[in-house]
Amino acid sequence: MKMLINVPETVVADALRGMASAHPGLSVDVDNRVVVRGDAPVAGKVGLVSGGGSGHEPLHGGFVGPGMLSAACPGEVFTSPVPDQMVRAAAAVDSGAGVLFIVKNYTGDVLNFDMAAELAEDEGVQIAKVLVNDDVAVTDSLYTAGRRGTGATLFVEKLAGAAAEEGQPLERVEAIGRRVNESARSFGVALTAVSTPAKGSPTFDLPEGELELGIGIHGEPGRERRAMMTSHEIADFAVNAVLEDLRPSSPVIALVNGMGGTPLLELYGFNAEVQRVLSERGVPVARTLVGNYVTSLDMAGCSVTLCQVDEELLRLWDAPVETAALRWGR
Amino acid sequence: MKMLINVPETVVADALRGMASAHPGLSVDVDNRVVVRGDAPVAGKVGLVSGGGSGHEPLHGGFVGPGMLSAACPGEVFTSPVPDQMVRAAAAVDSGAGVLFIVKNYTGDVLNFDMAAELAEDEGVQIAKVLVNDDVAVTDSLYTAGRRGTGATLFVEKLAGAAAEEGQPLERVEAIGRRVNESARSFGVALTAVSTPAKGSPTFDLPEGELELGIGIHGEPGRERRAMMTSHEIADFAVNAVLEDLRPSSPVIALVNGMGGTPLLELYGFNAEVQRVLSERGVPVARTLVGNYVTSLDMAGCSVTLCQVDEELLRLWDAPVETAALRWGR
Repeated sequence: MKMLINVPETVVADALRGMASAHPGLSVDVDNRVVVRGDAPVAGKVGLVSGGGSGHEPLHGGFVGPGMLSAACPGEVFTSPVPDQMVRAAAAVDSGAGVLFIVKNYTGDVLNFDMAAELAEDEGVQIAKVLVNDDVAVTDSLYTAGRRGTGATLFVEKLAGAAAEEGQPLERVEAIGRRVNESARSFGVALTAVSTPAKGSPTFDLPEGELELGIGIHGEPGRERRAMMTSHEIADFAVNAVLEDLRPSSPVIALVNGMGGTPLLELYGFNAEVQRVLSERGVPVARTLVGNYVTSLDMAGCSVTLCQVDEELLRLWDAPVETAALRWGR
Repeated sequence: MKMLINVPETVVADALRGMASAHPGLSVDVDNRVVVRGDAPVAGKVGLVSGGGSGHEPLHGGFVGPGMLSAACPGEVFTSPVPDQMVRAAAAVDSGAGVLFIVKNYTGDVLNFDMAAELAEDEGVQIAKVLVNDDVAVTDSLYTAGRRGTGATLFVEKLAGAAAEEGQPLERVEAIGRRVNESARSFGVALTAVSTPAKGSPTFDLPEGELELGIGIHGEPGRERRAMMTSHEIADFAVNAVLEDLRPSSPVIALVNGMGGTPLLELYGFNAEVQRVLSERGVPVARTLVGNYVTSLDMAGCSVTLCQVDEELLRLWDAPVETAALRWGR
């Protein structure tokens, strides 16, 4: 696989240098691998720190800014960041109001954020944590005890971020984060395998004419392989898989997410099919977001995340956000 | 090639239905293939209409909204829209202040927008036109007499759109559009070929281990093929190709654009190299935009567009914009 890189060893540092020059509102520590909003710490405001392996961009660095994350810690590609990054990030964003760690459920991430929480608390920073585990495809996956954390991360970061921006205290911001995770479920589909810079070739074999239903964002195996399906059939399968687990009693926000290698033209067409299934199932849709937000490098495919919202969560969704990848005003 | 579609024949209509449900601020006429901002016509405001073959998303439909395009006309994949679409769009957005057509320089687009201008003027709509021809790679390409129109389209649409939003008259908005086109140059590189839904397989052959320098956004041949290069070397080649033609005497805005299939992680790393070359060449950079904006379906690769700006153009760039793909406030 050809890649637009220098050498695999510098991919993450190169990207951080490129982020720094593109986004002067961010403070990027390339050596220590921490991306912080430029005005941190914000007086009286709870800090939000997330992070994880690189290769899922714009998650998480693209979600740092007013109304969303205070800081992000990128690891090597598909590899957890280390506790030192998270401790630095917490120190950089803590105003005294405490810091919420938002952790996708992968074994390495969970262990490292746990260790970082202890170290940060030793330094006097109050830490709370929200674990994101929204992927209904499988339990106890390749890198996971329990469910994987995928598209719901965007919702937890946006909605808890908006609550923090409003000045809500740590226990409230944490409670909102937990509630969002419990209200959101995802299902992903791969049309092609993903190639990492280190390997330089596809990390698994997915032949022409087949797709993988229930794929993870690192290419972890899903539920089953089938002969290639239409957008109509894939939407039926993915949305129904989510609705087997989440039975919304109020409207949902729909994230129709690209895995990185699928053209936006196809994603919008897929969204039309997702909306059809939701309409057939009688699920009202309050908002829809279509695009590449929680990706897996060059993998072709998509995922659907539905997040059930009440008036409070919808208000937090509509609140202003100003990050590299997600931005809107009132 | 596996694609997230139903059948090739409905790809564009499916995507328009998906856009309509994701963006309630847009008025999408799926049957007639016109995407209009929901509040058009805006009293006293010049209308801006663009369009072209589909497959370059978010261009153009993703740039419809306050501060940018009034309407977009998507053709079939890599095929010009027809004059009837443009006439409908002009009628929908004209408030009496006239309409500017923004036309990428491809033979079909130029002919059809010319014909549409005559028809719209017969119906009493005053029409002006700006031709975008910024690609320095080749002249007289596969579908072009003269240079191709690529990344500068985003700049013409944004800056002329901001001028129209301010209430400037048609001749001023047209003059700004022309000045932006004259101030902007692009160069693109492909790492892989593009696959269209109709063909279902790569439209040309680009072997592993080679890249194409000077590619067009439909996969038209570029200047030359070479053995695969590093991000460092590609940035040297692309930026220097642009600077051979554009010798900026004031700061530039840099668009570091993905062709669709290249991960954002790689694009940010490439941006670091682009900024290095610009710094070495003594070109100050006022703003930088990194992402997939003028794409070629699933093609892996990138392009660099530099647009020289004075105070007026920089003010128009920073003006608020609220579209699906580009949005920021003051």
